[in-house]
Amino acid sequence: MKNKLSGIPLNMIRINDESWNKYIGLVKEVIIPYQWKILNDLEEDAELSHCIHNFKIAAGEAEGEFEGAVFQDTDVAKWLEAVAYTLFCHPDEELERIADQTIDLIGRAQQKDGYLDTYFIVKEPDLRWKNLMEGHELYTAGHMMEAAVAYFEATGKEKFLKIVSRLADLICEVFGPKEEQLHGYPGHQEIELALVKLYRTTGRRKYLTLAKYFIDQRGVGKNYFFWEMEQEGHRFLFPDFQGYDPKYSQSHLPVRQQKTAEGHAVRAVYMYCAMADLAYEFQDETLLTVCRKLWENIVTKRMYLTGGIGSSGILERFTVDYDLPNDCNYSETCASIGLALFGRRMAEITREASFMDTVELALYNTILSGISLDGKHFFYVNPMEVWPDNCIPRTSKEHVKPVRQKWFGCACCPPNIARTLASFGQYLYFKDDHTLYVNLYVSSQVKTRLSNEEVCVKVTTELPGKGKYVIKINSKGNQKKTLAFRIPAYGKDFQVQNENGTILSPEISNGYAYISGTFADTVLSVAYQEKAGFIRANPNVRADAGKVAMMKGPVVYCLEEVDNGKNLASIYVDADQEIKEIYEPEVMGGTLTLELEGKRISSDNWSGQSLYGTEKRKLEDVKLKAVPYSSWGNRKAGEMTVWIKELIR
Amino acid sequence: MKNKLSGIPLNMIRINDESWNKYIGLVKEVIIPYQWKILNDLEEDAELSHCIHNFKIAAGEAEGEFEGAVFQDTDVAKWLEAVAYTLFCHPDEELERIADQTIDLIGRAQQKDGYLDTYFIVKEPDLRWKNLMEGHELYTAGHMMEAAVAYFEATGKEKFLKIVSRLADLICEVFGPKEEQLHGYPGHQEIELALVKLYRTTGRRKYLTLAKYFIDQRGVGKNYFFWEMEQEGHRFLFPDFQGYDPKYSQSHLPVRQQKTAEGHAVRAVYMYCAMADLAYEFQDETLLTVCRKLWENIVTKRMYLTGGIGSSGILERFTVDYDLPNDCNYSETCASIGLALFGRRMAEITREASFMDTVELALYNTILSGISLDGKHFFYVNPMEVWPDNCIPRTSKEHVKPVRQKWFGCACCPPNIARTLASFGQYLYFKDDHTLYVNLYVSSQVKTRLSNEEVCVKVTTELPGKGKYVIKINSKGNQKKTLAFRIPAYGKDFQVQNENGTILSPEISNGYAYISGTFADTVLSVAYQEKAGFIRANPNVRADAGKVAMMKGPVVYCLEEVDNGKNLASIYVDADQEIKEIYEPEVMGGTLTLELEGKRISSDNWSGQSLYGTEKRKLEDVKLKAVPYSSWGNRKAGEMTVWIKELIR
Repeated sequence: MKNKLSGIPLNMIRINDESWNKYIGLVKEVIIPYQWKILNDLEEDAELSHCIHNFKIAAGEAEGEFEGAVFQDTDVAKWLEAVAYTLFCHPDEELERIADQTIDLIGRAQQKDGYLDTYFIVKEPDLRWKNLMEGHELYTAGHMMEAAVAYFEATGKEKFLKIVSRLADLICEVFGPKEEQLHGYPGHQEIELALVKLYRTTGRRKYLTLAKYFIDQRGVGKNYFFWEMEQEGHRFLFPDFQGYDPKYSQSHLPVRQQKTAEGHAVRAVYMYCAMADLAYEFQDETLLTVCRKLWENIVTKRMYLTGGIGSSGILERFTVDYDLPNDCNYSETCASIGLALFGRRMAEITREASFMDTVELALYNTILSGISLDGKHFFYVNPMEVWPDNCIPRTSKEHVKPVRQKWFGCACCPPNIARTLASFGQYLYFKDDHTLYVNLYVSSQVKTRLSNEEVCVKVTTELPGKGKYVIKINSKGNQKKTLAFRIPAYGKDFQVQNENGTILSPEISNGYAYISGTFADTVLSVAYQEKAGFIRANPNVRADAGKVAMMKGPVVYCLEEVDNGKNLASIYVDADQEIKEIYEPEVMGGTLTLELEGKRISSDNWSGQSLYGTEKRKLEDVKLKAVPYSSWGNRKAGEMTVWIKELIR
Repeated sequence: MKNKLSGIPLNMIRINDESWNKYIGLVKEVIIPYQWKILNDLEEDAELSHCIHNFKIAAGEAEGEFEGAVFQDTDVAKWLEAVAYTLFCHPDEELERIADQTIDLIGRAQQKDGYLDTYFIVKEPDLRWKNLMEGHELYTAGHMMEAAVAYFEATGKEKFLKIVSRLADLICEVFGPKEEQLHGYPGHQEIELALVKLYRTTGRRKYLTLAKYFIDQRGVGKNYFFWEMEQEGHRFLFPDFQGYDPKYSQSHLPVRQQKTAEGHAVRAVYMYCAMADLAYEFQDETLLTVCRKLWENIVTKRMYLTGGIGSSGILERFTVDYDLPNDCNYSETCASIGLALFGRRMAEITREASFMDTVELALYNTILSGISLDGKHFFYVNPMEVWPDNCIPRTSKEHVKPVRQKWFGCACCPPNIARTLASFGQYLYFKDDHTLYVNLYVSSQVKTRLSNEEVCVKVTTELPGKGKYVIKINSKGNQKKTLAFRIPAYGKDFQVQNENGTILSPEISNGYAYISGTFADTVLSVAYQEKAGFIRANPNVRADAGKVAMMKGPVVYCLEEVDNGKNLASIYVDADQEIKEIYEPEVMGGTLTLELEGKRISSDNWSGQSLYGTEKRKLEDVKLKAVPYSSWGNRKAGEMTVWIKELIR
């Protein structure tokens, strides 16, 4: 295995893209302050978080009971992680001060032996480590570790790192192969990938060893969660426990025997991230092949067009190949974030651009859809089709909301979106010693070193939405360096030209186009076709049979009721037409919409109130307007659909 | 309100129709003995019932714990009801002896004060009457009453009637408007309609008064189930109780204010039955209008083409107007039985044939679909579309089974089907003093008295499936009598002819054609077109937009995988074609199948494994075969669909 690619420090990347900055800017201006108020129970309209208060109680500085989810601590961990990335790019003394104070409080809540989880410290001290299936202790520890690593990288401050290291050291004592240790693994994977980060930051190999143990031990022999249930002192945290399927937590088989993506989607992709990390760290080709196969199962059989995963609302999980229902799916925002993290890792290890095709899909669609334009409302669930009237409690659509919600009780998605937006740069560029990889064509600039010389690269969208990008490269020194441009799978007629308009002949390898040079003062341009067009699904996907969707580049479009009226299920499009692309400055602060002709099943000839009849179907002409899926539900609550019936002749 | 029509004693009706007798014969030969084995835990392959054993424990004649559902007693009640109807038509000493012994046992299990419910007698004596929401005591009492009335009518024996009267007397004491009484109503409606039956059989008016009380009190003021939760001694029976919506049990409003069919479908229709009964008994036009409006809401906005009701798998309930998903609906067999009972009552009161159109739909489709050809396997849930691969636990399809199951743990449907088949005659004929109503054109004969003279009527299907029926009437005496023939809503070119071929001009009123005469020795023929044709749903039903179904008369057809291959979602039909009707003696013991041309989306041009792509849709020609929905799933487990995409030009 070659050395893998690495990311570039976030403070060396500046994002200039207007539309991305619309969202990314929200992180510092809106989400971080808003989430801070939530964590401190100062936001009136939202569900109470009690997160900070739990830490105060644990630190002996306040009275009261623990309140919130069993993993409530992770809300502040993910907030701190988002703060870290934000400080990295935009230093802010006041914000850093608040973060430091919060970290101090976390430190005071930490127990002497390093244990850190306010749910158990305050509410269930007797259950420490006794219920990994439900307890989320290791999940919570993992998010704390990720936050501490990010904070250290952003600020150079070690305090948070020391806190989580004490916790990690404790976990290394408690879990492992020795007889006196618990041979367990987390009920919700997360700590594995976090331990790898902690190892890479601190250099302490035992963290890597423990990550490997958790992954290797998982699903071996008797399932740990069933073993755990039989032990002295075990108690269920959730009283209506009713039968556990180990597939839910991907603990039904040793990971190397797993061939399909099963169970709870977020747990799955967080685990696959760690597996990819470990495959690299241990040069384990077998494990990397397993990762490839799981990735392939997802993207060829179990993923939505929008990069969403999790086809079952119940248990937020994968179901079976080609089962992709559009109106009762889960497609949790967090799961697509995990999918992007998994794909990024695979791209860094393999240098195969196809992984970034899926990452881009997830970023531009499901992940972006998770947040409203005002930054204060979120989608947990990302349906492909919505009819608000039937999204009522205690039905197969009860988890589907037709509009984004303010802070949730179980609030894993909003902070996850925040940290993703704040660290967006991790997806834009990779590098190795000599090569800079340009993954996503987003107006931005990056400063790095290639072949030991400083290089600045600036990507500018020359004509928004027209697929033409200007790449300005400045480098002092005359070592040979290489730029690798991702060729998007949808990008027709991909070309790289030099300043004079000469079409270059880059070496193409695994979806990247490699151009080498000294790049003293170079301007290149990258162009490809990304006109809006129609997409279909594999005929095996029964839910999408006979339907089309529209995409422009990586952006999936949808029809909304506010533009097209009720009953979107009665609409047909003829895919033999040009789709008009129209930039509308008045729509949601400026949106590229699509316009096309369609047909609608008329109600005119339907007799009165009857429910069934022999009347023939009558079609009437309609004009349709589509908007990006990521911005649906920002105007008026109503019906939405990505997949539209195709007029088949 | 005119006098309502009445049914004809079952022993005065003989059913000769081959296909119905295929099923009805099963009741005596297979279902009753099979269910008897189940009730006594003698059937190896099925879930244990423990029903009879519970009664033995309650009677102090056996040891052990209560086992089974809280309403387990109703299994034997419904078995006895089916036995009663069967004995009525086919006397059988041995069967009657077993029934008498069972009734004796029930009597011995009954407590001194008349209380009868083995769950509470054996397991929860302290909770008597304290948890109507979950306890099903009144539901169970209702089924006992229905069984006892049927048994009395069939055999003339009073013992069972006395048992349930003691129980009813107790309930009359406990529940009512007086201060010392409980102002409650059942958590699962059923007793209301049973009390009406008991009143009509015994003449004791207090039973009718109590039925009225239960209906009138329901949903008035503070919801009784919430009040009950606050009382001393209350305990939940189901530990994961999590929030109760009174709509579930139609106790959210007083019944006279209810305009839409809400909540659990079986509860709803059993209640509507009682409301119709009471509207008649009390000549309450307002209440009858409420019944009409609820019926209309169901049949014009909330019912499946197959007469199924209950669009949500979760809570087995109605959802909202036009929300009729095909693959995750509930459409419980019991609910369609209740719908048929409701419709029959409305037809008897109003003399409007349209009610019987829906009753016929439910009987020929969802109800018949509930039982397999061998009489030992049952569908609880009746989907309109099935893909077995995705009917897995903990998904929105977990309640859907692609094949009928042996005896269930919660076994309300099989005995309900048995008693329906055994009392099928209740749907065929109605009468008043002078008129015999012929509702369903099923080969049969009936003996009754019209205008005080004996009349025998025999209906014969002259050409099976061709919509022509010969009616032979014999009557001694020369009083004028009337025959009313239902004109099916789908029956084109309806004609009544006399023996000479003269087309008669009957008086048509509300869907019945009235012919009067002395009928000394008369032969009439009734004919109408019922060729197989295409049906569509109201365009507001999003799930069925752009689709067609096929029906022949009342029979809904479907495509199955065993005939048409996998991926039925990829099939289109052009509705501009004649459907061929072919009688196939080899298929399931003789089935009228439909053959037609179709198109299928080909996988040929789909590139390899990809999940999404720009390949155009390619259609290939296919020949399709459809079978009656009622007989789906009897051959090989596989996909099924009623609604098929329509090729729209």
